[in-house]
Amino acid sequence: MNSTTKKTKSQKIFVLGGDGFCGWPTSLHLSNTGCEVVIVDNLSRRNIDNELEASSLTPIYPMSTRIEAWKEKTGRTITFHRIDIAEDYDAFLQLIKDEKPDAMVHFAEQRSAPYSMKSPRHKRYTVDNNINATHNVLCAIVESGLDIHLVHLGTMGVYGYGTAGMKIPEGYLDVEVTTEQGTRIPQEILYPTNPGSVYHMTKSQDQLLFQYYNKNDRLRITDLHQGIVWGTNTAETKLDDRLINRFDYDGDYGTVLNRFLMQAAVDYPITVHGTGGQTRAFIHIQDTVRCIEIALKHSPAPEDKVFIFNQMTETHRIKDLAHLVAELAGGDVAYVDNPRKEAAENELHVTEDLFLSKKLNPITLNNGLLQEVTKVAEKYAGRADKSKIPATSTWTDEQQPGIPKPLSPSN
Amino acid sequence: MNSTTKKTKSQKIFVLGGDGFCGWPTSLHLSNTGCEVVIVDNLSRRNIDNELEASSLTPIYPMSTRIEAWKEKTGRTITFHRIDIAEDYDAFLQLIKDEKPDAMVHFAEQRSAPYSMKSPRHKRYTVDNNINATHNVLCAIVESGLDIHLVHLGTMGVYGYGTAGMKIPEGYLDVEVTTEQGTRIPQEILYPTNPGSVYHMTKSQDQLLFQYYNKNDRLRITDLHQGIVWGTNTAETKLDDRLINRFDYDGDYGTVLNRFLMQAAVDYPITVHGTGGQTRAFIHIQDTVRCIEIALKHSPAPEDKVFIFNQMTETHRIKDLAHLVAELAGGDVAYVDNPRKEAAENELHVTEDLFLSKKLNPITLNNGLLQEVTKVAEKYAGRADKSKIPATSTWTDEQQPGIPKPLSPSN
Ligand SMILES: NC(=O)c1ccc[n+]([C@@H]2O[C@H](COP(=O)([O-])OP(=O)(O)OC[C@H]3O[C@@H](n4cnc5c(N)ncnc54)[C@H](O)[C@@H]3O)[C@@H](O)[C@H]2O)c1
Ligand SMILES: NC(=O)c1ccc[n+]([C@@H]2O[C@H](COP(=O)([O-])OP(=O)(O)OC[C@H]3O[C@@H](n4cnc5c(N)ncnc54)[C@H](O)[C@@H]3O)[C@@H](O)[C@H]2O)c1
Repeated sequence: MNSTTKKTKSQKIFVLGGDGFCGWPTSLHLSNTGCEVVIVDNLSRRNIDNELEASSLTPIYPMSTRIEAWKEKTGRTITFHRIDIAEDYDAFLQLIKDEKPDAMVHFAEQRSAPYSMKSPRHKRYTVDNNINATHNVLCAIVESGLDIHLVHLGTMGVYGYGTAGMKIPEGYLDVEVTTEQGTRIPQEILYPTNPGSVYHMTKSQDQLLFQYYNKNDRLRITDLHQGIVWGTNTAETKLDDRLINRFDYDGDYGTVLNRFLMQAAVDYPITVHGTGGQTRAFIHIQDTVRCIEIALKHSPAPEDKVFIFNQMTETHRIKDLAHLVAELAGGDVAYVDNPRKEAAENELHVTEDLFLSKKLNPITLNNGLLQEVTKVAEKYAGRADKSKIPATSTWTDEQQPGIPKPLSPSN
Repeated sequence: MNSTTKKTKSQKIFVLGGDGFCGWPTSLHLSNTGCEVVIVDNLSRRNIDNELEASSLTPIYPMSTRIEAWKEKTGRTITFHRIDIAEDYDAFLQLIKDEKPDAMVHFAEQRSAPYSMKSPRHKRYTVDNNINATHNVLCAIVESGLDIHLVHLGTMGVYGYGTAGMKIPEGYLDVEVTTEQGTRIPQEILYPTNPGSVYHMTKSQDQLLFQYYNKNDRLRITDLHQGIVWGTNTAETKLDDRLINRFDYDGDYGTVLNRFLMQAAVDYPITVHGTGGQTRAFIHIQDTVRCIEIALKHSPAPEDKVFIFNQMTETHRIKDLAHLVAELAGGDVAYVDNPRKEAAENELHVTEDLFLSKKLNPITLNNGLLQEVTKVAEKYAGRADKSKIPATSTWTDEQQPGIPKPLSPSN
């Protein structure tokens, strides 16, 4: 065998949580770029739909149908393993040993803040699932003895949202500590977190896991602090109806922009929590998958600290978004009690030199939102269950759910 | 009923982990001061003795015998519930609702750093047990709706041990963050941690749980960052042989001073890991129980942040301790490979104004160590299993266990 016949080895990537909203389009995108993709998912998100009696606005297909359709359309193979990575460590470790992946993208956590606050059981599930999932991934990489780059999805929300116009840097903060003799020693620390829900708190705990395993075992880790993802489809999920991505609009899993689009499409008031003065960061799902591709290519060396990047492309005030959607899609904006505990108003300044977004020519709300209205929200509006739209989880017992007055049970 | 006949209501205290080395003497001490004590423990520590084929140097009695002996000697009643607080949330919550405690002291975690590093299974058990135990306690307090002061045992080791003579403050650090406009805003943050083992990391994650539940639910929490506890008995455990406390000397659970005492008593080399230049903080078990009594009295108000106090009374270099024990009890000091990943040498300056130790007239090594040698280590030396003394857990696969050369298997 001479060197010209040697095939360039394609990267093998595990996508943990590859059946989910971000994981599925990421799997297709990476497969499309020539990576060998192995999805690991316990389908817990579909089971939570059953529990909540809610479902994706878009009709999502069983995993085997999705994978078949992808093969049919592109000739490419994605494999799927149903494993609970928080519970079934041995099966997961065996899969790693068998498949020897070059990298893993870890989406496999319970990711809804309202769901994490619904009841003590939901709080406990979120902590148990997320911490054990992340810790098992780290343990299994060490135990496998393989050199695997781990890319994890965190959230910018982990810092909480102050009111003071604080700049959110990428992961670290320089501080000074004082010695006995009064000397001030500079030190770089993880940027202090101020998580606003049990879900966000688990991401803050994840950071400590990454820092520790990076230090003790020199694991190569990238933690992407993502903004709120909007949009539904990517170049790949559009190839066939059976490849369509999730669109969550219910009070627990529907992120703010999706809920607004849905509300407009079904003539439900566009419900803003509190004053709507909260500023949040956003990124389109198409840019999420491109960011992950970039992060996989830009992998840390064993001597590097954990790479932490913000993954977002624009920031908006919630009330501005509500009015934008109302204009594009029609509808009224209604201000309701905020079921969350958070600052009523805040600014958000993200440092300009974001590593990831510099490399993108992002899809912005201005050029992508209308398509989302017509191609998704209005197209599937007939499948919507209006009763699932309000945010019913409250952060404490003294608070009120986010139900608009004319629709509240007392009226 | 007039006011003179009104009995002062005694405090009801849950001691979680009340069968353990710190928990048992704390239970007796609090009972002795008139508190109604309810012990909750799953006896996992005794089961770990079975797993490791090790046991306390002192013969410890079954819980029912301990409680009977206490009743016999003092007329006081302690009750015991065998509940796994990490697993059996419902039983634990029901107990809280039935008993309505005023406070809980939470010792119920896997507390050995070497045990937490033994294997992937031990790492995973430690994270799963400690995080779920602490989170369940917090969730259950919120769900009970009762106003319960939680006192938790953390460790000073959570900060790691720098070499730079850093002062360890009590819990918080003042930093400055920079806004978009360049304004520097002062902020108080949790003192950044640098945990040196999976066990220590769980304590760092616990801090985030406390911060979150204090903020969201206004729970009243005191976190005691304890130094290494030495000594065996307290005024109460000395009252009867059946009340005797644990003395762990094995490579996993035996803390440094106990291991040295044991090694001297059985003519085993006094094994110092690395150069012995590590400085650590210490406290006698008698002072531990007094600190907890003080912490329970000094409880935070609902608007207070988490109270964090260091619980220690003196600091020593490991090699100085080894030579002190060698002098008092006879024996040779042997320097062995360090199975841990830690700085070879460090200083440790703890701020002078320690809230807790100011209130104590502490038992120091100078006045308490000899008693420990004669009344415990030498008295029970016949029960020792020498093969359990070496520290066999290593922090990574490349490291060597802490076995002295003439005893190592290759010789
Ligand atoms: N969607 C967003 O706006 C957003 C924003 C910031 C960060 N994130 C992060 O990105 C990640 C993915 O988010 P998403 O919106 O795709 O969520 P999702 O719920 O749609 O997907 C998560 C997937 O992980 C799976 N999963 C969960 N626990 C598992 C376990 N123990 N074992 C195996 N599989 C498990 C679920 O079945 C699901 O398919 C999350 O970690 C989330 O925190 C998402
Ligand atoms: N011993 C020290 O030198 C020292 C130093 C600093 C901090 N601490 C902290 O003090 C606490 C007590 O330490 P210790 O030396 O008494 O440890 P220990 O192991 O002797 O006692 C812990 C007790 O908790 C119980 N337990 C563990 N998990 C439980 C669960 N899920 N449900 C119910 N019970 C459970 C065990 O059975 C055991 O009786 C620990 O949190 C430890 O981190 C100890």
